Amino acid sequence: MTHATADAQLEHSPERVLPADPRTRGIARELLHEAEALPILSPHGHVPAELVEADLAFGDPATLLVTPDHYVTRLLHADGVPYGELGRGDSPADPRSVWRRFCERWPIFDGTASGLWLRHELATLFDVTVEPSAANADALYARLSSRLAEPAFRPRALLRGFGIELLATTDDPLDDLAAHAALAERADVPTRVVPTFRPDAYTSAAPGFTDRVDRLTAASGTGADHAGYLEALRTQRARFIRHGALSADHGVRTAQTLRLDTDEAARLFDRVRRADAVESDRAAFEAHMLYESARMSVEDGLVMTIHPGVHRDHHPATRRAFGPDTGHDIPFALGFTRELQPLLEDFGTADGFHLVLYTIDETTYSRELAPLAGFYPSVYLGSPWWFLDAPDAMLRFRRATVETAGFSRTAGFVDDTRALCSIPARHDVARRIDAGFLADLVAEERMSLPAARRAIRTLTDEAPRRVFKL
Amino acid sequence: MTHATADAQLEHSPERVLPADPRTRGIARELLHEAEALPILSPHGHVPAELVEADLAFGDPATLLVTPDHYVTRLLHADGVPYGELGRGDSPADPRSVWRRFCERWPIFDGTASGLWLRHELATLFDVTVEPSAANADALYARLSSRLAEPAFRPRALLRGFGIELLATTDDPLDDLAAHAALAERADVPTRVVPTFRPDAYTSAAPGFTDRVDRLTAASGTGADHAGYLEALRTQRARFIRHGALSADHGVRTAQTLRLDTDEAARLFDRVRRADAVESDRAAFEAHMLYESARMSVEDGLVMTIHPGVHRDHHPATRRAFGPDTGHDIPFALGFTRELQPLLEDFGTADGFHLVLYTIDETTYSRELAPLAGFYPSVYLGSPWWFLDAPDAMLRFRRATVETAGFSRTAGFVDDTRALCSIPARHDVARRIDAGFLADLVAEERMSLPAARRAIRTLTDEAPRRVFKL
Amino acid sequence: MTHATADAQLEHSPERVLPADPRTRGIARELLHEAEALPILSPHGHVPAELVEADLAFGDPATLLVTPDHYVTRLLHADGVPYGELGRGDSPADPRSVWRRFCERWPIFDGTASGLWLRHELATLFDVTVEPSAANADALYARLSSRLAEPAFRPRALLRGFGIELLATTDDPLDDLAAHAALAERADVPTRVVPTFRPDAYTSAAPGFTDRVDRLTAASGTGADHAGYLEALRTQRARFIRHGALSADHGVRTAQTLRLDTDEAARLFDRVRRADAVESDRAAFEAHMLYESARMSVEDGLVMTIHPGVHRDHHPATRRAFGPDTGHDIPFALGFTRELQPLLEDFGTADGFHLVLYTIDETTYSRELAPLAGFYPSVYLGSPWWFLDAPDAMLRFRRATVETAGFSRTAGFVDDTRALCSIPARHDVARRIDAGFLADLVAEERMSLPAARRAIRTLTDEAPRRVFKL
Repeated sequence: MTHATADAQLEHSPERVLPADPRTRGIARELLHEAEALPILSPHGHVPAELVEADLAFGDPATLLVTPDHYVTRLLHADGVPYGELGRGDSPADPRSVWRRFCERWPIFDGTASGLWLRHELATLFDVTVEPSAANADALYARLSSRLAEPAFRPRALLRGFGIELLATTDDPLDDLAAHAALAERADVPTRVVPTFRPDAYTSAAPGFTDRVDRLTAASGTGADHAGYLEALRTQRARFIRHGALSADHGVRTAQTLRLDTDEAARLFDRVRRADAVESDRAAFEAHMLYESARMSVEDGLVMTIHPGVHRDHHPATRRAFGPDTGHDIPFALGFTRELQPLLEDFGTADGFHLVLYTIDETTYSRELAPLAGFYPSVYLGSPWWFLDAPDAMLRFRRATVETAGFSRTAGFVDDTRALCSIPARHDVARRIDAGFLADLVAEERMSLPAARRAIRTLTDEAPRRVFKL
Repeated sequence: MTHATADAQLEHSPERVLPADPRTRGIARELLHEAEALPILSPHGHVPAELVEADLAFGDPATLLVTPDHYVTRLLHADGVPYGELGRGDSPADPRSVWRRFCERWPIFDGTASGLWLRHELATLFDVTVEPSAANADALYARLSSRLAEPAFRPRALLRGFGIELLATTDDPLDDLAAHAALAERADVPTRVVPTFRPDAYTSAAPGFTDRVDRLTAASGTGADHAGYLEALRTQRARFIRHGALSADHGVRTAQTLRLDTDEAARLFDRVRRADAVESDRAAFEAHMLYESARMSVEDGLVMTIHPGVHRDHHPATRRAFGPDTGHDIPFALGFTRELQPLLEDFGTADGFHLVLYTIDETTYSRELAPLAGFYPSVYLGSPWWFLDAPDAMLRFRRATVETAGFSRTAGFVDDTRALCSIPARHDVARRIDAGFLADLVAEERMSLPAARRAIRTLTDEAPRRVFKL
Repeated sequence: MTHATADAQLEHSPERVLPADPRTRGIARELLHEAEALPILSPHGHVPAELVEADLAFGDPATLLVTPDHYVTRLLHADGVPYGELGRGDSPADPRSVWRRFCERWPIFDGTASGLWLRHELATLFDVTVEPSAANADALYARLSSRLAEPAFRPRALLRGFGIELLATTDDPLDDLAAHAALAERADVPTRVVPTFRPDAYTSAAPGFTDRVDRLTAASGTGADHAGYLEALRTQRARFIRHGALSADHGVRTAQTLRLDTDEAARLFDRVRRADAVESDRAAFEAHMLYESARMSVEDGLVMTIHPGVHRDHHPATRRAFGPDTGHDIPFALGFTRELQPLLEDFGTADGFHLVLYTIDETTYSRELAPLAGFYPSVYLGSPWWFLDAPDAMLRFRRATVETAGFSRTAGFVDDTRALCSIPARHDVARRIDAGFLADLVAEERMSLPAARRAIRTLTDEAPRRVFKL
């Protein structure tokens, strides 16, 4: 990479991520003003409830901003920094050295979504005004470390400062939800922190399935057979609901669904539990369990969210050495129309059923997702996910779906992040993109300004409340 | 949805759907001016000839604008209004109540193509100046109903007022075409109304195939065997041509084509007629019939149009209760390159053969369709179809195809609608998008203004006349 | 097509292909200024080394600009001109007549990438100021022919004038590379002309495989068995490296890769050599050879480039009559994530391995390629290829990949052309698009101007040097 200039100014304009055309920008600013007054709703994400409950100070900037954020570490890895030097794995690196690696390679984040968020965090949380660089890395480290020791930088203070009304975590069905329970008791937590039921480990036929199911049924006090297995899932869902859960989240390989009668399903379950299932059995089991999960959502009212289409752990050696979520979960092509047909045939018009569909394959936006959401009362368009929650990609999402499905069929933005400090940055970018998208429509005389005003309120506030049943 | 403001102004600016940048808009306006003077050519659509021939007054605004337009009803359905309350099915609802449902939910059409067209129709046909809402629904109903009783709102008067030079209908091969014949005799019909040969029911191996084929061969006076079947299709095509037909339209499941020798084809036909065909036989038969239809077009000169890739009747219960075309025909991924190869190998350079390809899978634009149209003299790019005949989607189509195939390889806009009153609105939006697209090229100094002038004439008038052999 | 106006001005503005918005254009101009000062690097293309070594004058404008450029001839073919009239095939047409065909159909190139390049060449090389047309075809022919006789129009003088620092050719593994050797000795060649190892003919299991392999092993002095075959490929790669080769290029059918142990691979090789291989054997062999080619690149350091996903010779009759590269190689859908997994699992983090991925299926940009390049240190994004090296398509490429992978993971522009005179035009358009893309980011306050300056240097100069190991 061409190197950074020493002490270049950190770009973080109040007009950031707004359209270039002056008149359009004026309209966008007006719409953004409307959106900025609204609280942050985060109905899907990965901040641990324990972090909020413990409310400990973050130690240092590398541990806050670099090491746990696999969007940041993957680009450093691609640029030639081994994960071992980034604080991942068994022998943690010195955070000062990790921070130096990050600062000296700052230009690799130019133009990326991570770069935008990092700039937002550095500028708004730490009043940084220069770009990180090899020359200023140590000074920045010292400065940020001292700020992180202040009470205002504890998780609960940050949540308050960020104006986060709702924060959903993502949890294992057997999680004891103790942190959630403790938080619910506290008077000093301004944010509603709710769990999300994520059953993948118990519904995907991966190695260790039998052990996991045994633990699930044992913990649920049900039999270990097929009926007991389904009852155990229902039991845990009910427990999650008592702890405030709004949704059940399904990170499946594909969107395939399969209707089976009880006997077939029980036989399939038995094959998958024993060693003799073949690959097609495993695929069928997962497709059937996605179908059954919809049935459970119809019954108990948990919003169902699906995000298929990712090859997890593409580089097994990195997984073995540094664990999951290390930046090599890579999307592939997928479909929804034929895959979801059995599920939607049976539950697509069920009262109160809400199904939010996320994708990392943009081709499905105009081709499948918008048409499905434009017919089924249950189907909502999830916001651009993962690699796609970036300015241009979010704009493409709106342009590919609104013309077919309007504004009311979208579920609002989700930040989907483990990085607490990035939440306001992510919502800020999303709101600016929506404001710009709507301003384009107004400037091109495709929509009135009053209609754009109601649309930005729908997208930012009304839709997520309605769709996630807040 | 966030509710509409009462008596908000209905947006319908003369500058609608034009680029925001002032200089670019100026160029676009100039190009649009050129296009607006040209007549409307509608070489593919679904307005029934009987409607024009009978020339009866439309009864009320719900029956005109809501109930028959499944683009409108599907969004109301997604928003929670059962089809039974929208006048579909066996027990028709009170049109006043349907109209109220529509008006009170007006904001769900914000940003959609249907919203644009509805505004155009309300503003230009009925001089409506406020947005529909719960508050004004009844008043609007009364006002529109009284206008619909005026002679100027009869179908033939509308066709004249709209400046529609050509209107193609879409017809079953056994349709008697009596309405077309009657219209051809009339001196007071300013529009050339021509039938389109749509043989899908007789070439797709769906249940009831045998009965339909028996009716076809009986009506055609041919034998009931394979040779008679093909002869019957040729016979009916010839009859359509005598009634002015320009094209044969094929709404196939995929674009797969298959060359078979006569014996293989006859055996396959026999299996499909009897109960013992398997799914692969049915797919092979349809692929072969698409290939044979191309041969027939080469022989008789009917333009061949193809639009594959849709899962029809995704929600069977809705189909059973409310019939086909109820808003749940959902696209899926498809290909053309390998699928059409047998057809194009044999007929792709045949003299006078015109093959217009439509798609709802945008990924095929730059990847397959533009490259095919940029080589084969027979292949033309159909305009964005179905969910894609909306401003942003039409812009994406041009941007994905023109760089590879230029302007001469496109077939011009088709409105593909049953909604007579929406035809001018649809062509208007298409012309504005083309004007804006070309204005961008001029403003970005990628094309001269004179070249843009000739391009908009090509797209609006010259190409459809040439490609559809007007 | 609507006909051209006689003597219309040829559009070739200094502001060509820059954003319309005045402020954005100002920024783009500034960035372009930075890029224009840099030399042209062409690390992948098809100009024959013999052309440069022989340094003969080009005969006439049709032979220079029309006949050998299948991007031009394919559009003339689609417009109804048989290839026989374009100088292709056994009985060459009169170049005057070919030139007339081209001039009279000039408007079919409006809006196309070829049109932009042709205008650039006509304006900058030949000072043409009017659009070609039927009326001026003969005069233009005479004028261009007389210019082509000047010494400044010899290949080596053109290379110098164009500022081409590096020119890579594409060569058969058994090419004697005599022209490259001769050029390396010459003091008067300002351009470094290097060969590229293109082994497809010896690694794809197409008819004639056995003969080609026999020639390969005989020429390499190795055994004719599997071990000898692999050794022969290594021998020829080493010879190419001695002649300055930078990369090995793989035009495979799909990106599928397959790891096999030596015995399995040897047995597969034997089946493919003999007549008894089935289609799945051939696919497996090609997938395995793509995997083995990566291993060879890891060993010898040649950059590996892959461009899969094209149906070659879609119209066999045209291939038979007029040869390959006649405009009917048509892309289809493809994937990289699962296909490349075996290769990347084993070599993705290998020291010094560079793998550049090209695609003609745009859907893979954001879905697969940017995520892969954002993790693997070996993977680089190739520039938009083939039908996609056009303004809008190049802009889509940046918008789909930069947000995920930044600027450092791209390999820079390649012109991929046989048309020597089009090289500056192609690089000019690419630089303008990059300048405009970056100017948009600056104008939308998503990136600082200094960051945009370093990005355009990265894209134009630093990245290709680093990725192609110049």
